[in-house]
Amino acid sequence: MWRPTVTSTVDEPFTTAAARSAQLETEILEHPERFRVLTGDRPTGALHLGHYLGTLANRVRLQTAGVDVFVLIADYQVITDRDSVGNLTGNVRELLLDYLAAGIDPARATIFTHSAVPALNQLLLPFLSLVTVAELQRNPTVKAEAEATGGRSTSGLLLTYPVHQAADILFCGGNLVPVGRDQLPHLELTRLIARRFNQRYAAGQQVFREPEALLSPAPLLLGTDGTKMSKSRGNAIELRDTEDRTAALIRRAKTDSQRTVTYDPDNRPEVASLLLTAALCAGRSPVDLADEIGDRGAGALKAVVTEAVNEHLRPLRRRRAELARDPEYLRGVLADGNARAGGIADQTLTRVRDVMQMIY
Amino acid sequence: MWRPTVTSTVDEPFTTAAARSAQLETEILEHPERFRVLTGDRPTGALHLGHYLGTLANRVRLQTAGVDVFVLIADYQVITDRDSVGNLTGNVRELLLDYLAAGIDPARATIFTHSAVPALNQLLLPFLSLVTVAELQRNPTVKAEAEATGGRSTSGLLLTYPVHQAADILFCGGNLVPVGRDQLPHLELTRLIARRFNQRYAAGQQVFREPEALLSPAPLLLGTDGTKMSKSRGNAIELRDTEDRTAALIRRAKTDSQRTVTYDPDNRPEVASLLLTAALCAGRSPVDLADEIGDRGAGALKAVVTEAVNEHLRPLRRRRAELARDPEYLRGVLADGNARAGGIADQTLTRVRDVMQMIY
Repeated sequence: MWRPTVTSTVDEPFTTAAARSAQLETEILEHPERFRVLTGDRPTGALHLGHYLGTLANRVRLQTAGVDVFVLIADYQVITDRDSVGNLTGNVRELLLDYLAAGIDPARATIFTHSAVPALNQLLLPFLSLVTVAELQRNPTVKAEAEATGGRSTSGLLLTYPVHQAADILFCGGNLVPVGRDQLPHLELTRLIARRFNQRYAAGQQVFREPEALLSPAPLLLGTDGTKMSKSRGNAIELRDTEDRTAALIRRAKTDSQRTVTYDPDNRPEVASLLLTAALCAGRSPVDLADEIGDRGAGALKAVVTEAVNEHLRPLRRRRAELARDPEYLRGVLADGNARAGGIADQTLTRVRDVMQMIY
Repeated sequence: MWRPTVTSTVDEPFTTAAARSAQLETEILEHPERFRVLTGDRPTGALHLGHYLGTLANRVRLQTAGVDVFVLIADYQVITDRDSVGNLTGNVRELLLDYLAAGIDPARATIFTHSAVPALNQLLLPFLSLVTVAELQRNPTVKAEAEATGGRSTSGLLLTYPVHQAADILFCGGNLVPVGRDQLPHLELTRLIARRFNQRYAAGQQVFREPEALLSPAPLLLGTDGTKMSKSRGNAIELRDTEDRTAALIRRAKTDSQRTVTYDPDNRPEVASLLLTAALCAGRSPVDLADEIGDRGAGALKAVVTEAVNEHLRPLRRRRAELARDPEYLRGVLADGNARAGGIADQTLTRVRDVMQMIY
């Protein structure tokens, strides 16, 4: 969804979800019209190659398969764990450019922001009544993020954001949510809220259907310094970067002292990550690439990676630069998406108010 | 505000607030146009004499003085601590009838429901980012209500409702909030949220002004059985009761074994409460009334109370019965109030989104 991943040790739900996800992939190909996907990001900056290969490309794949894709720019979530919205206007614009450049098509998908859809946000109120504070505090991502804030107290928004996510998914009847393994507890909470709402306030009518997790086969790409890829560490190739900057970043990338290039993720994580990056961009296998490079060493590897990345991103970057020159168009895309999401949210809220007897 | 009272031992804020309230009463008389009051109730049933003499009459007094009064029917708050909305449609109707019968004038005051004003509810999101979970858990009313639910877990809605109340007060620029002494911590939280919002998200601009507490001189009336007046205990005279039922309830009222009637709240709480009820309804002093009744005993006291209450409520009950026959009018009152509150909430939210850079 729209949060960084945390390590989880829960395995059985993962195994079940992985098996179900494989089935779902088949169902998607056969009946894409049965699915609505809800996914999104916090607008904290431009996206990098890890985001692109890990999640953006998957969204485009689902859209191309004919699934109805909703992409949420979770602007209020920026302040769950920080005191300032930062350069929010700029960050939303960069995110939108990344989406469009990557191939999210506003004629088929709905791109919208939290702040523009009050009826969605109102769902937070009935939903908050359906969960206990203890349940919220048990959420592993909330726990991990609370710890990551380094002694800083957890805000009310951080504690309740999984409930807000439930509203994001349920307002539009999303039934498929691409998630990483660590986000399964979030989705479980959404399913719980849907069930409890139907039982408690709708006399068992199915006002909300329970969404399913689609476990993404997100590749683990490291940053160019061998640590987690992150904009703030300066180790990430951004989609908007120039070819020169991309080349420079890869040139500085950490490798190891072995001259012969092999694909060995466990023992040679930095070299493996570079190979995987090139392979994903070039549509090749990382093992084949390693064989081709052989003992030509790190320099040759980096040349291959640079070319594969720049080649793959070239049309995307061209589109991005063109779109960036058309702010009117960008505003229109968001306005249309917000209007579409708003219409659906109004309908859902009316139904919710109706079953709760809140129309007088 | 719109919650039952809990005992508080904090005295210094109370003393300060009491002194300031006395000043405010003078300012209200001199410049009523400077004040907007926000107040309200949870729609859990019809109001009783304690509500009327304690808070409703005070709202009408402020309205008559020329203050702009907003009265919120806090429908989502019904489910902070219970699993069902109950007969919500009926309860909202009864509450509205009580308001109108008591003299809240929809031409001057704004009566509205939470559920119909999404832009107000959206303010919960930025406001939740401004408070920590620890601050929410320290709130004495939340603590007391969590304990009162008897081991049942605190819901997310109960924990966060003081933040929702902050949104109620701040969305309409309410600067005066009639409260009981125990609700001072709630108002303090609202003031904190206003300050933090202005500092953190508005670069010090005064988007929200800090409201002040108007401590109501709410008389403590006991139920007819000598315990706290409460509909669920069957010890409360409701505004909508008939004169016969009122008489029957007072006839059964608990007194004590002393024949001579005296006004002695500390040692004779039941008799004192009856005297105070009659005194407030008749516009007399309870001591004078006690003197007049003298040694004619409990029977005479009850006759005096019954007459004073029924006399005082007669025009109110007549109005109430008339209004009850006009559901179209009632719907119109709520629709108008909701539209007015909605317009103001939309303006406030636009300003909030603007300073937070959330208009793209």
